[in-house]
Amino acid sequence: MLSKNLIKYIRSFEQKKRRKAEGLFLAEGPKTVGDLLEVERAHLLVATADWLAANEVNADEVVTASEEELRRASLLQHPQQVLALFPINQTGDDMPRVNEAELALALDGIQDPGNLGTIIRIADWFGIKNIYCSHDTADAYNPKVVQATMGSLARVHIYYIDLRQLLANRPEGMPVYGTLLDGENLYGQRTENRGIIVMGNEGRGLSAELLPLLTHRLLIPPYPAGRRTAESLNVATATAIICAELRRKAAVFQ
Amino acid sequence: MLSKNLIKYIRSFEQKKRRKAEGLFLAEGPKTVGDLLEVERAHLLVATADWLAANEVNADEVVTASEEELRRASLLQHPQQVLALFPINQTGDDMPRVNEAELALALDGIQDPGNLGTIIRIADWFGIKNIYCSHDTADAYNPKVVQATMGSLARVHIYYIDLRQLLANRPEGMPVYGTLLDGENLYGQRTENRGIIVMGNEGRGLSAELLPLLTHRLLIPPYPAGRRTAESLNVATATAIICAELRRKAAVFQ
Repeated sequence: MLSKNLIKYIRSFEQKKRRKAEGLFLAEGPKTVGDLLEVERAHLLVATADWLAANEVNADEVVTASEEELRRASLLQHPQQVLALFPINQTGDDMPRVNEAELALALDGIQDPGNLGTIIRIADWFGIKNIYCSHDTADAYNPKVVQATMGSLARVHIYYIDLRQLLANRPEGMPVYGTLLDGENLYGQRTENRGIIVMGNEGRGLSAELLPLLTHRLLIPPYPAGRRTAESLNVATATAIICAELRRKAAVFQ
Repeated sequence: MLSKNLIKYIRSFEQKKRRKAEGLFLAEGPKTVGDLLEVERAHLLVATADWLAANEVNADEVVTASEEELRRASLLQHPQQVLALFPINQTGDDMPRVNEAELALALDGIQDPGNLGTIIRIADWFGIKNIYCSHDTADAYNPKVVQATMGSLARVHIYYIDLRQLLANRPEGMPVYGTLLDGENLYGQRTENRGIIVMGNEGRGLSAELLPLLTHRLLIPPYPAGRRTAESLNVATATAIICAELRRKAAVFQ
């Protein structure tokens, strides 16, 4: 049985302030919660009796709830059988060590929670384990982002850091890829199966301070390739195409 | 000056019923309205005096409004200087003639307006002029979709038709591509720079009735390629990767 206080407590994780204070985030639904449980112990898990009977639970505290109670605690339009609070693996302000053999993503001011969630899902698909976010990027533990990741948050590490500092101090020789409307055709560039892909804000693109740190200025060519266009691709769309292409080349030329 | 009745009339285009009855849809913002004006005459255009002074207007009726009036008429969270009603170029229930030399998209039950808008934007970038939608696909003239297309709706034709019939009656020899989690590695397949790319519903994927009509069953390989994964990519993400790859090959092997 879910008390009024507990319902209020769970719903309060919509606020970043609360998530930060408690070091926890809210995940909902069998897919997202299930994927997270595979890698992490939940702090609190609330589920229907049916879901609990069918699943192994790794949690400090488990509460059985009716569907009506879950509905009241949920931030979703269509609540599902389970929700849980998980610890945020915050690394503090320490600069993470970039692995020079790997491909990573750096997000420079991505604002839309749906875009951020989709990008985390793309990273997971393409075996990218680390995403470095500028401090003005949306919060990856925002329930809307968590939902859009479809469980991928369980397999991708997220860091909030100073991107200029990260790129400037990366291992020597490590490529830094950026997409720009005046960049060079992606398919004509020599790329490697490692490096940091920097994706810019939805409206203004990449920050001026990061541009000099790029080693590759890429354009995803429109079709036909020379076509002049004032258009751009959505940032998650562009991320997907770049990641797919770097991984494709790696597979073809290995 | 914008009357109460006109504000109510404009806002009513949130409803499909109204759009259908009037054969019009609502577009908002300088980018979207501007792109549409390049190809179409507006039925009604409402804008601030500043916007009207700076732009050429091709419309049956033009109303100057204050920012406050525009705010009241707008369906957006952050209204912009202009909104307009444009005619829906409905083709009725006639089966369109598929051009066998072109690449086209077929959408089988795409539900999310954001996904549909993003896909229309992707089509525009990759020079795909026609999108065929099943009747249970979201309405492309829903204001949320119109917004997400960022003006691309002006350059892409949308048809609502029976996809099984379309595919069954396509020109002889025309490829039909589908993405499936048990498909063949996209990069190992012989594809052409023409055909119909069929993308399935967010939850259930492609309809069973369409599967026998595919000539190519493609998988976007995760990385590393053999990795077993229960995950999937968002449908707009997958559309972007497939379109980019078919166009890339065309450019490389032309």
